[in-house]
Amino acid sequence: MSPIIIAHLGPTGTYAETAALAYGKSIGAEFELIPYNTIAQAIEAVAQQAADLAVVPVENSIEGSVTMTLDALWRIDGLQIQQALVLPIEHQLISIAQNLAEIQTVYSHPQAFSQCQEWLGKHLPQAQRVPANSTAEILPQLADLSTAAGISSPSAAALYNLPILAADIGDRLENRTRFWVLGHQPAITGSHTSLALSLSANVPGALLAVLAKFAAAQINLSRIESRPTKRSLGEYLFFMDLEADGYDPQVTKILAEITDSVEKIKLFGSYCIADFEAD
Amino acid sequence: MSPIIIAHLGPTGTYAETAALAYGKSIGAEFELIPYNTIAQAIEAVAQQAADLAVVPVENSIEGSVTMTLDALWRIDGLQIQQALVLPIEHQLISIAQNLAEIQTVYSHPQAFSQCQEWLGKHLPQAQRVPANSTAEILPQLADLSTAAGISSPSAAALYNLPILAADIGDRLENRTRFWVLGHQPAITGSHTSLALSLSANVPGALLAVLAKFAAAQINLSRIESRPTKRSLGEYLFFMDLEADGYDPQVTKILAEITDSVEKIKLFGSYCIADFEAD
Repeated sequence: MSPIIIAHLGPTGTYAETAALAYGKSIGAEFELIPYNTIAQAIEAVAQQAADLAVVPVENSIEGSVTMTLDALWRIDGLQIQQALVLPIEHQLISIAQNLAEIQTVYSHPQAFSQCQEWLGKHLPQAQRVPANSTAEILPQLADLSTAAGISSPSAAALYNLPILAADIGDRLENRTRFWVLGHQPAITGSHTSLALSLSANVPGALLAVLAKFAAAQINLSRIESRPTKRSLGEYLFFMDLEADGYDPQVTKILAEITDSVEKIKLFGSYCIADFEAD
Repeated sequence: MSPIIIAHLGPTGTYAETAALAYGKSIGAEFELIPYNTIAQAIEAVAQQAADLAVVPVENSIEGSVTMTLDALWRIDGLQIQQALVLPIEHQLISIAQNLAEIQTVYSHPQAFSQCQEWLGKHLPQAQRVPANSTAEILPQLADLSTAAGISSPSAAALYNLPILAADIGDRLENRTRFWVLGHQPAITGSHTSLALSLSANVPGALLAVLAKFAAAQINLSRIESRPTKRSLGEYLFFMDLEADGYDPQVTKILAEITDSVEKIKLFGSYCIADFEAD
């Protein structure tokens, strides 16, 4: 049997890779991780059968939705969520410098800068912050840069054999990211169901009608997130996570009922949520 | 009289500066623009009385909410929206190169990259994309870089006396950004009212109750946007734009009624929306 191919945002050392690895280990089959330059490319790879699964970030407890993931899921057809997994984010300052005073430049993803801004403001106020496409992008060069640092995970530091100059520099203890595992398997049964819809009528009344139906059936929405339709300023789609199985007769009944009031609806499937501990 | 100080995201040449300039010209008084390194710093400057006003982006028709602005408004007290203004975004490829084949590197803000990704994929597939803190950040160096390009506005190209190598490279015609002008003046009367709230109970029922009240009073919500509370994954605040004056008795009645079911509510004031044409 050929291994299961899992696509993720690269390069090696990203949090997405840690999540993909944790998921791969949990499935009890041979697997191979393939890094992609962007989240959208990782999702496209599954849609185009170049990979079996993609593990992509959906939302972080501090920075909120990963809009690139939501936009790609609305645009690309045929993918279903196989599972959700939650990973703790533990930012480390990685550098070969001997002490903080030597650091002139810090490289990382903009989200990592936001999540460490208090620490950076206090300990490295003068250092230049250079944004990168991922937390891991700078790591291959750090062994040669004595006045630079990166912000990345403990496993990334280990992977590149780089020292951690300051540990756990995130501003808040509760920093967790939720990932979705996307694949081609049809919707399985699970505790959560995700969907997105655009409304044919004006937002307020039509959205309220949809929400009211779920509320009347005692179905909790654990999340509602708006995204622009990209057609006109002020026109939105809505991503919703239901605390219910998509095969629940109440859910299927409501989905049938709202068909007329939505312009387009996409069901991303039902799934369970796994909590993974970072290594 | 001393000029009115208007803070915005810098350096000179950003779209935020164009918006701040358009607003300054509209007020009929002497004004001075002060650039800041981040949106949050521009907002802080007003809160700390170092500036009279800040002009900050709120939402783009393609990329959606500017989360840094929303998060800063929730965190920083005492500011009111004086006006909203909408600016068309017209991305230009700016470079001293003679033709596209010479371009090896493109520098811009990640949002500008997303908004031009089709054009870049077609015309500059091999060029490296380097993210910057603003669309204007690279402009002061471009006169000396013969194989590099920036993506910025027509007025930024003029300001730095740089040639436009390719005009209007954005993927969609409808690319507009809404800005808010923030200041200390108490809430004025206006067609729109913005607020944000966190809910004391679980999201679904409590949010629905708030939305239902506005719907029953025939008050349209033109936008609802969730942001994480940053306390725990799955806990949200909601930003709402009402199509109503905050002094409307129906609005004040509803706001009084929902006080008990919300944990915290912040009113950002009532204001009018101005459409500005880019120069």
